[in-house]
Amino acid sequence: MTQNIYDDPVFFAGYAQLPRSRQGLQGAPEWPSLRALLPPILGLRVVDLGCGYGWFCRWASDAGARCVLGLDVSTSMLAEARAQNSGLAITYDCVDLEHLSLPTASFDLAYSSLALHYVADFAAVVKCVHDSLIDGGRFVFSIEHPIYMASRAPQWLMDASGRASWPVDGYCREGPRTTNWLADGVVKQHRTIATTLNTLISAGFGIRHVQEFGPSQAQVAALPELTPELERPMFLIVSAQR
Amino acid sequence: MTQNIYDDPVFFAGYAQLPRSRQGLQGAPEWPSLRALLPPILGLRVVDLGCGYGWFCRWASDAGARCVLGLDVSTSMLAEARAQNSGLAITYDCVDLEHLSLPTASFDLAYSSLALHYVADFAAVVKCVHDSLIDGGRFVFSIEHPIYMASRAPQWLMDASGRASWPVDGYCREGPRTTNWLADGVVKQHRTIATTLNTLISAGFGIRHVQEFGPSQAQVAALPELTPELERPMFLIVSAQR
Repeated sequence: MTQNIYDDPVFFAGYAQLPRSRQGLQGAPEWPSLRALLPPILGLRVVDLGCGYGWFCRWASDAGARCVLGLDVSTSMLAEARAQNSGLAITYDCVDLEHLSLPTASFDLAYSSLALHYVADFAAVVKCVHDSLIDGGRFVFSIEHPIYMASRAPQWLMDASGRASWPVDGYCREGPRTTNWLADGVVKQHRTIATTLNTLISAGFGIRHVQEFGPSQAQVAALPELTPELERPMFLIVSAQR
Repeated sequence: MTQNIYDDPVFFAGYAQLPRSRQGLQGAPEWPSLRALLPPILGLRVVDLGCGYGWFCRWASDAGARCVLGLDVSTSMLAEARAQNSGLAITYDCVDLEHLSLPTASFDLAYSSLALHYVADFAAVVKCVHDSLIDGGRFVFSIEHPIYMASRAPQWLMDASGRASWPVDGYCREGPRTTNWLADGVVKQHRTIATTLNTLISAGFGIRHVQEFGPSQAQVAALPELTPELERPMFLIVSAQR
């Protein structure tokens, strides 16, 4: 199964302090970009792959979704989701995305925020999501950007004038990347942009929009420590349609 | 108009020595990847945007294209094309891609190799190509990869162990990049992958395949100086369909 780093106590304690954990969607700088790609939620059947604390499930429920299925591998996360973000339309379930199974033609929208870069068998997830959507259904997700993830030494490099560059190496070598983020030994799965998009196309999706997310000038003005993030994209956001 | 660096005598002399100039398509390591994305050529009406020496036009003509229109801004290039790669089905014409005009619904395939990253108004070219294709027609092109082009200092960085990383900075700042390649002051236009794909989608194209080209292991074995090229993609290749 996927490494379940979220149930590691050290990782979980660190994760709980992130703005996106404490403030929900408002603490995630990429949320406005993701939200702009979503169809009107009213009446939709929604599945959230890697729901974490359930902030998106709650938002979708409040926006009038007919039903929302929140899936996560972490029982710690699901406990927080049920405590903080329950709702009549919401069902939470413990599922390993590496072995995802969903009912056929049962959802109008599949959503995933920063979860699919932990999955080794991306093609299997994409096929399952495709089968679970109705014709015309949307799949909107974010992952860590492959530029961000590829290097064996993902650290800013400063030139003599103090300007930051991000190193890219091993970009074409797909597979696991082990980093120390919140806890030691976090394993992510690097895939190129091409593989990500071609996997969707091969499964029958049409690509509707691609965004390489970095913070806006306004976000950098509010949080100056984000300044280097203007140099390279942090997240890849994709909207696809069955 | 677009900077016409190909008519600069210094640039042209350097370009004439490249394997892709001397050997044609066989001298371009990405040609097999491009060729694999092309539809069967027999009977097609083909336009080549930035045809250079005309190697592709000659290949398409030999493969049975009904007609091939090769366009380039460089009169030096076109002279070479007419001298080396003429053919009954081939017409060469001097055109600035920045102000491209093509007859409506007149082509089955639009092709472009390493030319569109010189064009500032990519959206205008894409719209013109879309209008010039029949329904179902293909647009297959290569450009320098945005990872390759973004940095203000595009040079390999070597770590203490001698492994190469490529710097990425300014990725999200689109616009001109001036480099010294064969001649000083060559101006290219950096666009993100997202902009490249979204421009195609907005014009009405469906994305069929994306490839981030680096040389194969066999190509590196034959030309060991290509080894660092395994670390990051050099070219972006896209197949789109009207």
